[in-house]
Amino acid sequence: MSELRFDVTTADWVAFAPSRALRPHHEAFRAVPTDGNLSTAHCPFCPGNEAFTPPDIYVAQGANGGWRVRVVPNKFPALRIEEDTRRIEDGPAFHRMGGCGAHEVIVESPEHTVFLAQQPVDQIELVLRTVQRRHQDLMGDRRFQAIIAFKNHGPAAGTSLEHPHWQLIATPIVPRMLRQKHQVAEEYFDRSGGCLYCVILDEELRSGTRVLAANDGYVALLPYASHVPFETWIMPKRHRASFAVVEPTELRPLAELLRLVLLKLYTALDNPAFNLTIDTVSRGDEDKEYFLWHIRILPRLTTPAGFELGSGMSINTVLPEDARAFLSEVATTENHAVGRTEPAKVPVPA
Amino acid sequence: MSELRFDVTTADWVAFAPSRALRPHHEAFRAVPTDGNLSTAHCPFCPGNEAFTPPDIYVAQGANGGWRVRVVPNKFPALRIEEDTRRIEDGPAFHRMGGCGAHEVIVESPEHTVFLAQQPVDQIELVLRTVQRRHQDLMGDRRFQAIIAFKNHGPAAGTSLEHPHWQLIATPIVPRMLRQKHQVAEEYFDRSGGCLYCVILDEELRSGTRVLAANDGYVALLPYASHVPFETWIMPKRHRASFAVVEPTELRPLAELLRLVLLKLYTALDNPAFNLTIDTVSRGDEDKEYFLWHIRILPRLTTPAGFELGSGMSINTVLPEDARAFLSEVATTENHAVGRTEPAKVPVPA
Repeated sequence: MSELRFDVTTADWVAFAPSRALRPHHEAFRAVPTDGNLSTAHCPFCPGNEAFTPPDIYVAQGANGGWRVRVVPNKFPALRIEEDTRRIEDGPAFHRMGGCGAHEVIVESPEHTVFLAQQPVDQIELVLRTVQRRHQDLMGDRRFQAIIAFKNHGPAAGTSLEHPHWQLIATPIVPRMLRQKHQVAEEYFDRSGGCLYCVILDEELRSGTRVLAANDGYVALLPYASHVPFETWIMPKRHRASFAVVEPTELRPLAELLRLVLLKLYTALDNPAFNLTIDTVSRGDEDKEYFLWHIRILPRLTTPAGFELGSGMSINTVLPEDARAFLSEVATTENHAVGRTEPAKVPVPA
Repeated sequence: MSELRFDVTTADWVAFAPSRALRPHHEAFRAVPTDGNLSTAHCPFCPGNEAFTPPDIYVAQGANGGWRVRVVPNKFPALRIEEDTRRIEDGPAFHRMGGCGAHEVIVESPEHTVFLAQQPVDQIELVLRTVQRRHQDLMGDRRFQAIIAFKNHGPAAGTSLEHPHWQLIATPIVPRMLRQKHQVAEEYFDRSGGCLYCVILDEELRSGTRVLAANDGYVALLPYASHVPFETWIMPKRHRASFAVVEPTELRPLAELLRLVLLKLYTALDNPAFNLTIDTVSRGDEDKEYFLWHIRILPRLTTPAGFELGSGMSINTVLPEDARAFLSEVATTENHAVGRTEPAKVPVPA
């Protein structure tokens, strides 16, 4: 049983998924439960253990008969497709609905411990293409208003399973934070006729002090008002509001730049915990001018505390210009030459 | 040098306080630096080590000649009173200002390891009164628009020093999250003529399923749409928009209820990490009808991950009704009988 409850004081929906944790008895909350260091014998994402997960949603087969990428439902989903979207009034200030949505896991490699950026570009491209296909497929369900695609790396970033994976959550409402972000950009568009994010990108390219790397299709930069140390964005040079409408051919340069950025962070900060999310528009705005989809990488080097929770503001201890200078000096070790990898084969999802 | 930078994509101000951390070189970010387990000989908040901090802002003396509560400037402030509030344009999308504000520490006891709820009610009342006096005093500086009072408990809650303390940060802008929360409540007031929080409190008292405890002046409850497991609010029965205008005589029942709630959380969850903040209005709204000041206690039992950072939504694994039932069954050990303590003596701040 999942449900969504509306916080009338903030206009946020909160997802309640009691099955995700142990019941609230003494032992359950003595420590945060984690199974992060499962051996490969018990890891549900390792080859041979496919029966430990719910049945596949999608599998990308490799040349050797094994799989290269595997998509399965999350065994402890935050939201579930069988729930209802009707609003229920528990009282004048208490509104809820069923925890309707979807929660999928994209296992990004058969290997238990390999880091995304240490994989061949082909494999990273395949992961991105799989994320995109699942995004497109989930938006076929018209109850879903937004898709949050994300990757957690390291226990400090909330990873509960070590085996590298991405997740997608489809929500039946537009989360308030995203709605607000879209409204800010829409108001800018109404006022100026332009895309706020394209203006930012142009300004960053002109100044150069926060641009970490770029290729034909994308720019990696550390934003002017970074909320956390070493926050890094990857922005497309070509205006598109949604990750779902990016041409498949445009995913290869994205994979290349993502790999470079993650290698730099990995090397410079000694394999930091981080969260990666794809910022994109919600249902119906895929062709709009006001927003530019982008990747946000948020290293988890500091712990938000009472001030951050009480004010919503961030305290950042590193200026993005300093972080960019530091990352720029880092030489990345290229373990995988691009030419050495097998060509990407991307089967159509079932 | 502190500065505030405006995030044009979210309308948040971000505080940059580079002096708070080591410079961004390799060692600095291998691990989050912490001095949480300083021995009392080196603890800047222990009696005898007063010279380790900047000079006192305020001291509450005890009967024995030593201090009971001590307020000092934060040695590594997020914001500083000597900075400027003028806005500077670094480009069409880049706006900043000096990191103007104040950042104070309230050492809540001479004892290095005592937990707030294990102290006599008198001492808790004195701490609350000191927080209130500092709030009132800081609002005398008309550059400051909002005061965030908070307490971090435990490393998972971002504590950098073990010796128990509160902090106050005065900001020269109204943080966007608070502005939005106030707007929601103001719109409710404009529509209905009532205070949204008083409506919530009435509904909670009627249903009772989320009310943990109450006394003459206050109600402790676990909110309907709790963002984290065991989130607990303490709300005053008497309508007041700001903590700053609470009568000093009303702080004793608050201290009693806060002590009970913290003891229950401590016992039930085995001394969990938590953040405590005081939600209150910003400058000029102290007498308004739309808002009810309240205390929020946010246990840090789970780690927000990519979904939470990407969507702004929370996933909560424990329904507040279940958490309340669990806490209600907990017997709290009363180490300090109320009558045993010395009467509160609250000197006027310097």
